[in-house]
Amino acid sequence: MSELRIAVVGAGQMGADHINRITERIVGARVSVVVEPDVARGAAAAALAPGAVALTNFADALKRDDIDAVLVATPGQFHETVLLPALAAGLPILCEKPLTQDPVSSLRVLEAEQATGKQLIQVGFMRRFDREYAQLRALIESDRTGALLALHCAHRNPTTGEGYTDSMMITDSVVHEIDVVRFLTDSPIVSVEVKRPKRNSLAPSWLQDPILVLLETESGILADVEMNVNVQFGYQVRTEAVFEKGIAEIGRTAGLTLWQDGQYGGAEHTTFKTRFADAYDAQIQRWVTATKKGEIDGPSAWDGYLVAAACEAGVRAQETGERVEVEYVPRPAFYSHELVTSVTV
Amino acid sequence: MSELRIAVVGAGQMGADHINRITERIVGARVSVVVEPDVARGAAAAALAPGAVALTNFADALKRDDIDAVLVATPGQFHETVLLPALAAGLPILCEKPLTQDPVSSLRVLEAEQATGKQLIQVGFMRRFDREYAQLRALIESDRTGALLALHCAHRNPTTGEGYTDSMMITDSVVHEIDVVRFLTDSPIVSVEVKRPKRNSLAPSWLQDPILVLLETESGILADVEMNVNVQFGYQVRTEAVFEKGIAEIGRTAGLTLWQDGQYGGAEHTTFKTRFADAYDAQIQRWVTATKKGEIDGPSAWDGYLVAAACEAGVRAQETGERVEVEYVPRPAFYSHELVTSVTV
Amino acid sequence: MSELRIAVVGAGQMGADHINRITERIVGARVSVVVEPDVARGAAAAALAPGAVALTNFADALKRDDIDAVLVATPGQFHETVLLPALAAGLPILCEKPLTQDPVSSLRVLEAEQATGKQLIQVGFMRRFDREYAQLRALIESDRTGALLALHCAHRNPTTGEGYTDSMMITDSVVHEIDVVRFLTDSPIVSVEVKRPKRNSLAPSWLQDPILVLLETESGILADVEMNVNVQFGYQVRTEAVFEKGIAEIGRTAGLTLWQDGQYGGAEHTTFKTRFADAYDAQIQRWVTATKKGEIDGPSAWDGYLVAAACEAGVRAQETGERVEVEYVPRPAFYSHELVTSVTV
Amino acid sequence: MSELRIAVVGAGQMGADHINRITERIVGARVSVVVEPDVARGAAAAALAPGAVALTNFADALKRDDIDAVLVATPGQFHETVLLPALAAGLPILCEKPLTQDPVSSLRVLEAEQATGKQLIQVGFMRRFDREYAQLRALIESDRTGALLALHCAHRNPTTGEGYTDSMMITDSVVHEIDVVRFLTDSPIVSVEVKRPKRNSLAPSWLQDPILVLLETESGILADVEMNVNVQFGYQVRTEAVFEKGIAEIGRTAGLTLWQDGQYGGAEHTTFKTRFADAYDAQIQRWVTATKKGEIDGPSAWDGYLVAAACEAGVRAQETGERVEVEYVPRPAFYSHELVTSVTV
Ligand SMILES: [Mg+2]
Ligand SMILES: [Mg+2]
Ligand SMILES: [Mg+2]
Ligand SMILES: [Mg+2]
Repeated sequence: MSELRIAVVGAGQMGADHINRITERIVGARVSVVVEPDVARGAAAAALAPGAVALTNFADALKRDDIDAVLVATPGQFHETVLLPALAAGLPILCEKPLTQDPVSSLRVLEAEQATGKQLIQVGFMRRFDREYAQLRALIESDRTGALLALHCAHRNPTTGEGYTDSMMITDSVVHEIDVVRFLTDSPIVSVEVKRPKRNSLAPSWLQDPILVLLETESGILADVEMNVNVQFGYQVRTEAVFEKGIAEIGRTAGLTLWQDGQYGGAEHTTFKTRFADAYDAQIQRWVTATKKGEIDGPSAWDGYLVAAACEAGVRAQETGERVEVEYVPRPAFYSHELVTSVTV
Repeated sequence: MSELRIAVVGAGQMGADHINRITERIVGARVSVVVEPDVARGAAAAALAPGAVALTNFADALKRDDIDAVLVATPGQFHETVLLPALAAGLPILCEKPLTQDPVSSLRVLEAEQATGKQLIQVGFMRRFDREYAQLRALIESDRTGALLALHCAHRNPTTGEGYTDSMMITDSVVHEIDVVRFLTDSPIVSVEVKRPKRNSLAPSWLQDPILVLLETESGILADVEMNVNVQFGYQVRTEAVFEKGIAEIGRTAGLTLWQDGQYGGAEHTTFKTRFADAYDAQIQRWVTATKKGEIDGPSAWDGYLVAAACEAGVRAQETGERVEVEYVPRPAFYSHELVTSVTV
Repeated sequence: MSELRIAVVGAGQMGADHINRITERIVGARVSVVVEPDVARGAAAAALAPGAVALTNFADALKRDDIDAVLVATPGQFHETVLLPALAAGLPILCEKPLTQDPVSSLRVLEAEQATGKQLIQVGFMRRFDREYAQLRALIESDRTGALLALHCAHRNPTTGEGYTDSMMITDSVVHEIDVVRFLTDSPIVSVEVKRPKRNSLAPSWLQDPILVLLETESGILADVEMNVNVQFGYQVRTEAVFEKGIAEIGRTAGLTLWQDGQYGGAEHTTFKTRFADAYDAQIQRWVTATKKGEIDGPSAWDGYLVAAACEAGVRAQETGERVEVEYVPRPAFYSHELVTSVTV
Repeated sequence: MSELRIAVVGAGQMGADHINRITERIVGARVSVVVEPDVARGAAAAALAPGAVALTNFADALKRDDIDAVLVATPGQFHETVLLPALAAGLPILCEKPLTQDPVSSLRVLEAEQATGKQLIQVGFMRRFDREYAQLRALIESDRTGALLALHCAHRNPTTGEGYTDSMMITDSVVHEIDVVRFLTDSPIVSVEVKRPKRNSLAPSWLQDPILVLLETESGILADVEMNVNVQFGYQVRTEAVFEKGIAEIGRTAGLTLWQDGQYGGAEHTTFKTRFADAYDAQIQRWVTATKKGEIDGPSAWDGYLVAAACEAGVRAQETGERVEVEYVPRPAFYSHELVTSVTV
């Protein structure tokens, strides 16, 4: 296969980004089809990729013979309706997070994937491809600083828009920490609890923002997550890992330092697009390379299901103020080949 | 009064440090008397201060006419037995933290102080005199970054000795955060909850170490405290403050940076004595200066009582795993003059 | 043109790196031909690029019809013998630094390029594509901190091999600063002087290492360059820029910070390959993209000539200990379109 | 001797600072006499020190019996006229830098000191008492990173006043680096050369500011000093030390870090008073303690002479643009006891 021909489904902000990425920076792949119900948006997105055609529904795309793989970038509530026919067509899939928005539908996707006889789905938890997360994961595996005991996570966004609700603090935002905490600890999350710091008066009136989320892993590690989506000052994702004999920290900004007007300083990120630019590129490049070999190289549908289950518990924890235990179905043998440890950047 | 003549009661590690400090670095004061039941230790400590005499009990000290003030550095369980006669004698007192080990005895001390008609007691929460805590406090007061919403605190010690117990994680260690969170927020702590990360296998077998302590203030600010007393790598006290429009951090080490063997780096503290050396000096110098003016200049006995009450709740929270509300008696008018805001370094 | 077909001439370390880069990470280009006199090395290098053929001389390559552009990665003394026939064939060229090893031969290359009627040569000064250098350049252009007055540069390599001589400290190493100082200041270097700090006893016996090189620009800016090629501890390129109202610094390492054993720290680079990995990628990607549009997008042959002339003066300065003025021919109108300011990353 | 009674001669900014310091922060010493020709200024300064009297000339002071030591804080041109009678009176002296303004007068002071039979003079090069300089000195002595090869120094002031002239860039400012380079290297400076970066248009019209000063030590170490006295942004003294196997850096600011408005940052110093506050305190405290034992504990008159000779060469280098060798008289046996290595902080 010379170039992997990708159908990008959904041409919103994330989809358009991926189309641009695949065209400008990803080797060995091109966008052949853009699926987007909004005709104007679909045309504009397809124009980013020379040779790509714009369609308004995914069923039409599946009838074509110029699609080798699918990248799902629709809003989360539509993921299942794209995933099921794509699986039925036997196509490799990169599905933006979340896999689906609840564990029941995620389980349906798992069923469908198992029916194909092959792992076709990779889920877009791009942080696993960030260089610093990979460094931290490698440190944890090295046991150089003793066992990992706790994680302190901060996830800060400048502002949120009109459609952003309380539960989205869990399902859209903490969702990343839910996956990455498991990635770092290699242990599933067994409980979620949500605490309320003082409310930010600059957040939309309907939001309890920030929150402090406590995640416990089966292995006994406690992760606290400051989820804070109207911090105004920038976009920041930081993690401090507490080991038996040391502390490690990732997520500080690099670049030019300036001394001026009695201050020194540098630039902080203001969007996830710059903070995780390299991670997005690495994720897609590795997915393309793996796909050509008939493999996936990143979080699987099973990982997606685990996150969906923990998010469901998280929303309940947020609503009740209680510690909520997460329940999972037993892991099917189909997913016994754990991919998580193979990730290095 | 030319030089303030101080009786130092208790010549253990902390007492000896203070004797040395007063002699070598504090202007306008000298140690006239050392009270220490262990004769050899008392003699050794008195030898640090030219002209000081060693006595074995505090009653004898009170009969002398060369004492202008008292510095209490005995173990906490003996504080009350020194404080009450010192108050009766009308002497200004710097009492090492904690004021006493429980709120009931603290209230007895408050009664006795009120009976003298004058605030004579300053409690040794030296962090209030640390330059970086003072910078953070000033930032909070400035409202430059909007309201304070949350605090993330880490308090890490290299190792603990034989006598260090689970409850001492609260009463000896978190006690500092309990005071300093109130100092920073200017609001009393209304609840305490204790969470358990994975246990450090390098800690003594009887300790659940580390713990994550959640403190809520009356004003709604949530402080999480990682209390971690066998971290091996060093002594570290860090605070990250979350504001509506910004983040501030204190407690990173300064000094020479070295590049060698493929690494860059610098020295971390390994003891509170170096980390808070300047804070201890500033605390005692300011107390001496204030005492000569008939004032105190730092945390009062009332502050000490608030901490004792919150610690009691903290130990209960640690034992039960529950969120425990802290109860306080109403503030006597005697303590209505709030001193906390006057502290600047 | 779908994919730019590149002949890579020279399959040593640098050439092999570029072959790998073009194959794995550069979009819109592939290696069609590898020219390398060492047959085994050529075959090994060609094997990195699916579909590439290995040849032993460049003349044979020029007879083929599957070459759209040439990347010259031979040792510097052979550059001219590749450049002249490539220009004669009208092929776009990315020439690794230096253009040639002396200004006389560089002028011959300029003549040949002018004879083609079009700028075909881009020179591989990859630092111009480094994100932090671009940030510094942008700051200089912004005038936000007043005029630039001076630059302090440090260029440090872990060790040098057997073939590395004193003059190569200028022609192989300082050559980068000679270009980048002009890039940053947008002004040619008018004099070079070389000072001798204490000799590193760990350097090969024949080397005077480190040296301190002073570069003056026509605009009056003074750049000092610590060139230090046996520092043992790592690979480091740092620049401090002195402005009228501020200071800026680039080149500090980012990534995971670790606290352990009484120290904090992180990893320093140990090779230019990691330090400038992104810059090399950006350079080649942008050259490929520009080449397809019939343009260059980076330092020109004229830039290469300026560097060759300054290096010649530098070697003389190194030998004599004197301040040596650099002499340039007048800039041909052909090169009047200054490309340097267009570089942003 | 209970308290060292000090006559402070000169009550300008520096003298008043010292009076305040001795009164507020120095143990075991007090100011008994202030000598200042300006009556109002003398009275104001004396008022800072309880019990101090103000006199208008030093001869009157010498007639009194309440002076144990002298601190000379007059402008440099008057140092000799205070030092000679103070030496004749056998009084211990802390002389602010420089010892005197030229080597000939410094030699006269050395003669006079030798005539007393005892080292009575300590010179106020306070940087030797700065914690980070002491750390760097200790690293150099440790040989942990191999031999020291070079130093990069930056010395930056916000602005200069009307009276500040070109030669004062050497005699008032670089004078500190001239001493501290010798302190760090333990080797005298054998040559000085002055280079001219682009002139700062914000500097007073009569100043060539900044300059780059090159200092060579007898041991072959090359120190470059950016002397830059109208940087606007703050006060900054930084040193980077180049070793055979590593690099060390001192002089970065510590304290609270703030993230706000898309930036992170912290405060830089804006005056030497805060940057070297601790160093000034340590210097005077150690001088007081040593003086009571009949010793000095810091740079001697011989150190002061070495600096005066190097400054004279530096001014000549500044005027001529040439490399100027420094000439010294042979070291008298009287000064053979090298004090420099005893300095630790
Ligand atoms: Mg592509
Ligand atoms: Mg004292
Ligand atoms: Mg390619
Ligand atoms: Mg004093």
